[in-house]
Amino acid sequence: MEEITRSMLRKDPLSGGWVIIATDRGKRPSDFGSVSAQTKGGFCPFCAGQESLTPPEIIAFREPNTAPNTPGWRVRTIPNKFAALRIEGNLDRQGEGIYDMMNGIGAHEVIIETTEHMGDMSSYPLNHLCEIIKMFRERTTDLENDERFRYIQIFRNHGATAGASLEHPHSQLIALPIIPRWVKEELNSSLNHWELKERCLFCDIKNQEIETQKRVVYENNSFLVFEPFASKFPFETWIVPKKHNSEFKTITDPDIYLFSEVLQKALSALYKSLSDPPYNLILHSAPIIRKSDGEKFKGIKDDFHWHVEIIPRLTKVAGFEWGTGFYINPTPPEEAAQYLREVINTK
Amino acid sequence: MEEITRSMLRKDPLSGGWVIIATDRGKRPSDFGSVSAQTKGGFCPFCAGQESLTPPEIIAFREPNTAPNTPGWRVRTIPNKFAALRIEGNLDRQGEGIYDMMNGIGAHEVIIETTEHMGDMSSYPLNHLCEIIKMFRERTTDLENDERFRYIQIFRNHGATAGASLEHPHSQLIALPIIPRWVKEELNSSLNHWELKERCLFCDIKNQEIETQKRVVYENNSFLVFEPFASKFPFETWIVPKKHNSEFKTITDPDIYLFSEVLQKALSALYKSLSDPPYNLILHSAPIIRKSDGEKFKGIKDDFHWHVEIIPRLTKVAGFEWGTGFYINPTPPEEAAQYLREVINTK
Repeated sequence: MEEITRSMLRKDPLSGGWVIIATDRGKRPSDFGSVSAQTKGGFCPFCAGQESLTPPEIIAFREPNTAPNTPGWRVRTIPNKFAALRIEGNLDRQGEGIYDMMNGIGAHEVIIETTEHMGDMSSYPLNHLCEIIKMFRERTTDLENDERFRYIQIFRNHGATAGASLEHPHSQLIALPIIPRWVKEELNSSLNHWELKERCLFCDIKNQEIETQKRVVYENNSFLVFEPFASKFPFETWIVPKKHNSEFKTITDPDIYLFSEVLQKALSALYKSLSDPPYNLILHSAPIIRKSDGEKFKGIKDDFHWHVEIIPRLTKVAGFEWGTGFYINPTPPEEAAQYLREVINTK
Repeated sequence: MEEITRSMLRKDPLSGGWVIIATDRGKRPSDFGSVSAQTKGGFCPFCAGQESLTPPEIIAFREPNTAPNTPGWRVRTIPNKFAALRIEGNLDRQGEGIYDMMNGIGAHEVIIETTEHMGDMSSYPLNHLCEIIKMFRERTTDLENDERFRYIQIFRNHGATAGASLEHPHSQLIALPIIPRWVKEELNSSLNHWELKERCLFCDIKNQEIETQKRVVYENNSFLVFEPFASKFPFETWIVPKKHNSEFKTITDPDIYLFSEVLQKALSALYKSLSDPPYNLILHSAPIIRKSDGEKFKGIKDDFHWHVEIIPRLTKVAGFEWGTGFYINPTPPEEAAQYLREVINTK
């Protein structure tokens, strides 16, 4: 994550997308010296005993009778020290001629997943992984109470190539005052499909995948792991709940266990197949619709279906992709699914 | 560019975007060993004297009385040996349940820009750069005659981080059977703006930038170089023709000279400011509308305004960006423009 302390949200009049732009002191040309910055080894502010080096914790799951910001935690959530957005203030929407902008308001939190500096999400004890997922649910539920926010994005960068700037395993959460364009696209597709068929698009995808089995990696009673038909990247892997459900935050404790099980199966299969590849993990859930939105988003929320996208970063995104939005994927998802199934089955 | 010999186009039912997926032999897990593949040094198939190692040339600008596929060329266009799309065949649109796909038909060409292996687009003699731009115009004009194509994307990857797999300076061109989603987005925004204001969106942007001068890097009689208001990346730099013009291929010879001048100013300012940064260069022009399209795209084409986007690859694209389509830019475009102006002025 880039180190920004104050920012503006600016709207691209051509794509309709928004950009978070630093307004304090910008990065100068000389700051980009280490283009291929590696994850820093050595001293780690996320390790147990270093709690005073991070901003004060928001919440931690900890052993009984241990004080906040001291050791004894198992999963610990803190504000991001170099947040892309600020939690205090109003949006203060403004124009500048034909351009649109607002203050960079939002929440940016870090979920430190474990005290183990060399831990990896693919191999945590299952009960511990459940605690991390519970933390995701806890933070989402809490932040949805803030009327300024429209969307909560939980994500995880693993490996320097995937943008991780600290090695110690952590996830991140950004609460946004705007429904982001990728989510809007998925929402619109879901809505169109519903209007055409009166069925959920994700449910249809999930049913077809279970039917053909061609791209299925793993499944249990509540979740399906598969390689999407139009995978943008080799070994792109999705997890969807089998039962229609638009909001991640409604996940039950028993389903957290089943979700943790498939998540671990997926991550460990990728770890073994691709020798611990860099990846990004993204959790997409329905946006936050307020009563004050009235009819504007009517129905749109319920048509959504929460899911996780895991994107191994094995190929480069180059001019063609940036220019068109087409992606070139050298590994058919059917082959990727077969590799991953074999790795899971030979365990 | 990934090495693909046969491919399918598959549509992502959620984003509406298309993906090119290899269908021959896919890349296996072990093929991704060198994630951070460096530009290969040493032996180069693009150097003069090695013409027999590339597919036969499509066209070359060469010295009088030199034969095709021998030395004597100045700018040489060849089919990409590892094309993402094939030129022969029909689209053969098909469904697979709820999914959509078609054959990976298209053209994928490489424009070898110079015989100088260590040359750089920022420092070619201006007349030579004009020849490269003429080659872009020549290939675009020729490929538009193929009724299967809807869009021609010219792009350039510079440096391994930006996806360049060969060091010898070259541009690429991909002709697509589908209007890509990014171009569609820009088209839709242009169309909406036209319907609202009866003015071109790009012209309005250009006029406001010239008026405020805050983000202007350079301009001459025909072209404006500026940092866009909502730059997704630090030092993102755009070039737009000052006169409204939807199609790149209509560029006149005098304007090719003026375009080459601003392109070189922009690239050399980036080169000096950021010590030869990796970058992607993208040329966006109006899509190809056929008579047979009838009313479907009425007006849409003329509302467009061709332009070039240069994206230095200084920051990492991570989970937040993949999840939302929001970008975090640590350098305000106003500051970037000032740096680049100073570099140009102190020359």
